Amino acid sequence: MTSSSHSTDRLPDDGRPYDGLILGASLATLDAGAGYGEIADAALAWRDGRIAWLGPRAQLPAPPEALAAQVIQAQGWITPGLIDCHTHLVFAGDRAREFELRLNGASYEEIARAGGGIVSSVRAVREADEDELLRQSLPRARALIGDGATTLEIKSGYGLDFDNERKMLRVARHLGEQLGVRVRTTYLAAHALPPEYQGRADEYIDAACAWLPRLHAEGLVDAVDAFCEGIGFSPAQTTRMFEAARALGLPVKLHADQLSDLGGGALAAAFDGLSADHVEHTSLDSVRAMAAHGTVAVLLPGAFHVLRETKLPPLDAFREHGVAMAVATDCNPGTSPLLSLRQAMQLSCTHFKLTPEEALRGATVHAAKALGLAEAGALRVGASADFVLWDIRHPAELCYWLGGRLAQRVFCAGRQVA
Amino acid sequence: MTSSSHSTDRLPDDGRPYDGLILGASLATLDAGAGYGEIADAALAWRDGRIAWLGPRAQLPAPPEALAAQVIQAQGWITPGLIDCHTHLVFAGDRAREFELRLNGASYEEIARAGGGIVSSVRAVREADEDELLRQSLPRARALIGDGATTLEIKSGYGLDFDNERKMLRVARHLGEQLGVRVRTTYLAAHALPPEYQGRADEYIDAACAWLPRLHAEGLVDAVDAFCEGIGFSPAQTTRMFEAARALGLPVKLHADQLSDLGGGALAAAFDGLSADHVEHTSLDSVRAMAAHGTVAVLLPGAFHVLRETKLPPLDAFREHGVAMAVATDCNPGTSPLLSLRQAMQLSCTHFKLTPEEALRGATVHAAKALGLAEAGALRVGASADFVLWDIRHPAELCYWLGGRLAQRVFCAGRQVA
Ligand SMILES: [Zn+2]
Ligand SMILES: [Zn+2]
Repeated sequence: MTSSSHSTDRLPDDGRPYDGLILGASLATLDAGAGYGEIADAALAWRDGRIAWLGPRAQLPAPPEALAAQVIQAQGWITPGLIDCHTHLVFAGDRAREFELRLNGASYEEIARAGGGIVSSVRAVREADEDELLRQSLPRARALIGDGATTLEIKSGYGLDFDNERKMLRVARHLGEQLGVRVRTTYLAAHALPPEYQGRADEYIDAACAWLPRLHAEGLVDAVDAFCEGIGFSPAQTTRMFEAARALGLPVKLHADQLSDLGGGALAAAFDGLSADHVEHTSLDSVRAMAAHGTVAVLLPGAFHVLRETKLPPLDAFREHGVAMAVATDCNPGTSPLLSLRQAMQLSCTHFKLTPEEALRGATVHAAKALGLAEAGALRVGASADFVLWDIRHPAELCYWLGGRLAQRVFCAGRQVA
Repeated sequence: MTSSSHSTDRLPDDGRPYDGLILGASLATLDAGAGYGEIADAALAWRDGRIAWLGPRAQLPAPPEALAAQVIQAQGWITPGLIDCHTHLVFAGDRAREFELRLNGASYEEIARAGGGIVSSVRAVREADEDELLRQSLPRARALIGDGATTLEIKSGYGLDFDNERKMLRVARHLGEQLGVRVRTTYLAAHALPPEYQGRADEYIDAACAWLPRLHAEGLVDAVDAFCEGIGFSPAQTTRMFEAARALGLPVKLHADQLSDLGGGALAAAFDGLSADHVEHTSLDSVRAMAAHGTVAVLLPGAFHVLRETKLPPLDAFREHGVAMAVATDCNPGTSPLLSLRQAMQLSCTHFKLTPEEALRGATVHAAKALGLAEAGALRVGASADFVLWDIRHPAELCYWLGGRLAQRVFCAGRQVA
């Protein structure tokens, strides 16, 4: 602020300057039902972590230097910060070797014998202490943020006992604090049956339901999830988990209908679920139920890609019935080793034929809905100042390029995080 | 160098210290017919741009500080610098908007009417001056290098007249000089028929053949390529182009059998071609001819992915007949907007079921062969000191992760370039 600009009539609202102001890029506000919500040659200002002003630069009420402590001259496009609404990014080890064995023709049985599969991730998470788990998870979170994510949903589900589920959720919280981004934790003890409960799935669900209130009391749980599938847990077991969530007032999400139709979409909807995720085999009945309850369909094209699936989610039915579609990485070591939400968007266009606008909305507005977030997902006054400055000429480029470094600056709640 | 280490018996060969020495990572030398050629806890030293020593760290002839001016302590893996043996990365504009139109259901005709297609790239390249073309191409080359590439093949083919083909090739040379990496240029005037030659393809080939000696005399051409396809140029026209190359002693490559089998593989082989590229529809006869002439099959899974192709290249036949398979990005604005060779490797595993080792060999040793390079592609004494230090625990991770920043340091000819 120069001293000559200290007349209050040139300052916003209450006379306090903005914390920051970015000028010259185009905005894709996504703040309407359709279209990118473009504002060309725009300005965006923030204060106290929230967007305080946005519009055409020419309509700024005063010279930029008079308005804000920090003024950034920009080119390219600004979108809302991306929201990765489905990740398992806290894990230890990796399963690249298993990936290699599979491509060398090993069967699932041989991989299991070689110590692969989800059990290997459970073992690695249990063996790592909290610091080690954080250390191994940090680069993955940094990669996602560096590519534009400002909100990360992170699931437990490789601990599968009280202490290790707790450890995972604590690491998720630490990641958010350390990296300055928003983290939403999801309790996914009902991810797989741990070896010590073999043949006793109902008992395991009882235990997992009993752990939940304790973890919730520690502030570690924002939502509850389960893997409802022939190779996972039954609808009845899922229902018990969801009832435990409901007793605590926690929202639910579901790994639903990925490999078969167990009515997962409808089950999630029946609990007013935030989202049903994967949904390749979701039935029309489930689609209708999701529409009625505002349950988001979270598309996970990374797993579809890596598993070389061919059954597409009922995309047209989702569109027709007004089910919001989100897109997420599903970042996990077994089936979706994605370290970029932009790449998930690319895969959603290539494999699912989403339009680039649908994909961007799916990684912002609809992803926010899938997490029950009101304050993020679109650029509007009052929303959290989460935004990304991209080195692109058109928003469709976000879904077009594979690889590359398009994000120039990433802000979460008004603070630069990448 | 400490003074106490200046006894020549502790120094390499002729007593001159190495320029640099990197210690502690595992090497994937790829310096044998099969396997990664792993050396655990290794050291690699270079001098005058070439690898001067490599082996287990424990076998270093003296303490590291006594051996080299620069000593780097490392963790992770070191591979040969990646070689992207097929790119069209010098272009202007992009075609993200066309990508979006297509996903919104526009037909090819509508896209053409909206100014899309290869013609739009030709127009944009012609309109850009040399500085502008360089400016727009730099970030793409930087992205590829930042992800581990130390050699880039770059084709002309959007100029389609003497001045503009020359401009593209000059920009390709400048990129190499400016970024410190090896660039191999390929003359691809026979990429598409320019509008001004509509209906006169034979005349255009005559012109393109006439431009070649002049561009070659300027040192702008390392190889000659053509797009041999129903929608490109005929085998007879391709043959004329190749004869012009042969007259100058230039090696040839070919965009072969991508959409149909025109015998492109065999045609490239008949000219002792370095490579036949795409090769989805290549016949067994062509495979045999390629094997007999040492012509490499360059797989381009990016275009396969973006175009949602389903016809796989004859992978087993290539393996069986000993045809070397390379993997490249095909970085181009229309059908393969890939800014990462690692992503091409990932796609080659997912779509073509290459093993991670085949994919890595395809982006190093076999890519070198596809460019006629003897000095790069593997880690061995005497080879150019092109190598990448990766933050990974196993080389298969290079094909496993989508996105992320795995390359810690990238060296070309002993100089750090990323
Ligand atoms: Zn998941
Ligand atoms: Zn090409």
